[in-house]
Amino acid sequence: MKTFIFHQLFEKETSTYTYLIGDPKSKQAIIIDPTIDMVSRDLQLIHELDLNLKYILETHVHADHITGAYNLKQKTQGQIAISKNSGAIGADIYLEDNDQLTFGNITLKALATPGHTHSCMSYYIEGLLFTGDALLIRGTGRTDFQQGNSKTLFASIRNKIFNLPDETLIYPGHDYKGHTSSSVAQEKRHNPRVKMQNTEDDFISIMSHLKLDHPKRINEAVPANMRCGNIHSSNSNQDTNNGQ
Amino acid sequence: MKTFIFHQLFEKETSTYTYLIGDPKSKQAIIIDPTIDMVSRDLQLIHELDLNLKYILETHVHADHITGAYNLKQKTQGQIAISKNSGAIGADIYLEDNDQLTFGNITLKALATPGHTHSCMSYYIEGLLFTGDALLIRGTGRTDFQQGNSKTLFASIRNKIFNLPDETLIYPGHDYKGHTSSSVAQEKRHNPRVKMQNTEDDFISIMSHLKLDHPKRINEAVPANMRCGNIHSSNSNQDTNNGQ
Repeated sequence: MKTFIFHQLFEKETSTYTYLIGDPKSKQAIIIDPTIDMVSRDLQLIHELDLNLKYILETHVHADHITGAYNLKQKTQGQIAISKNSGAIGADIYLEDNDQLTFGNITLKALATPGHTHSCMSYYIEGLLFTGDALLIRGTGRTDFQQGNSKTLFASIRNKIFNLPDETLIYPGHDYKGHTSSSVAQEKRHNPRVKMQNTEDDFISIMSHLKLDHPKRINEAVPANMRCGNIHSSNSNQDTNNGQ
Repeated sequence: MKTFIFHQLFEKETSTYTYLIGDPKSKQAIIIDPTIDMVSRDLQLIHELDLNLKYILETHVHADHITGAYNLKQKTQGQIAISKNSGAIGADIYLEDNDQLTFGNITLKALATPGHTHSCMSYYIEGLLFTGDALLIRGTGRTDFQQGNSKTLFASIRNKIFNLPDETLIYPGHDYKGHTSSSVAQEKRHNPRVKMQNTEDDFISIMSHLKLDHPKRINEAVPANMRCGNIHSSNSNQDTNNGQ
């Protein structure tokens, strides 16, 4: 594994993880899943580390918080990248499965892992997998809105994420119990929803019985995130089809 | 650097970090600064990873939360270790400056870093420094109770922590902005209180103007932590001298 700059960052209200990753030589960097409320913190860290932000990546169109992508783009050289299937407007790069991006000496690979939403991407960098809301630590993203589909999510996790080497580290988009990382091996053994002895039917049954409230800010967050966090745009009618 | 099992764990209410570190071969492990509210989470992780908890380490007598050390000891083989100077009762090991503990193939070294309290210890393991409330990310512990002393804390950070190699990673006992780690080099440059261009007088002045409220739970936490988290003990009269 190459040495790289790595900062996991947390936003307490929605228990969201943001990741800042940089190449120490070239100082080129990316950020994954920034939140609008923490843009000033993230900009300060980018500045203090003398990093040049090349890409601002979204794992998906979030329903629980507004992305900081648009605001970060205004203050840096960063280009916004998101899944092509998301239908989001305002990004610079629309990613498809297996697309690669490079920053300095580091290569990131996009893996389509739909199911939580229909267009979720996970990002693989040098033995680390940033899973967004597809695979969480001892959990998974929910599948009851934004074209979520339990069968699809099960296939993404079991056929794609769990096909990576066991020692691959998992860095999720959220954690609600204070865990910060896991591994493919741990989730195969201990994830109560998708561990290897569970069948697809087990998973579908688990997901159909969760009875979760919708995220508090979904009606605000999804339209804003369909514009990559541009909350000042007025053309909100055309881009909320993905919202429900 | 040797490869080891490493889990940083967070408790949201008091923004406290707990660290679980293990030797992959022998499965011997330690935990640093567990909290009483998260003992079941921590026990589950220890169990899932098949770890044998050898030591339960306190960086200091906490004022903002109750340690989970006593409760963890009841459910594991773990021995509680804390600074000898703390005066805490109920520990198995009383550490002095430069003492070492080994678990499996890994050696931990205790570094006395007083100033936030008079008996704070930092723990060094293989390029990582667990600083408790001595050095925080872009901050420091406060110095206005528990025999706190700004002059002492400045000396601990500048003469001891900042004497470690620049690439040493800093893992603090708390973070209130969602940072998870830093480095000696970063803190030397960017810590507004103790960066290298600040003098001792600068630091003392900064600390004397903080005007912080006392932690909400100090009157409950300090007496309990002076018994290493044994909240059921009745002999609370003799061990609260350190509380104010």
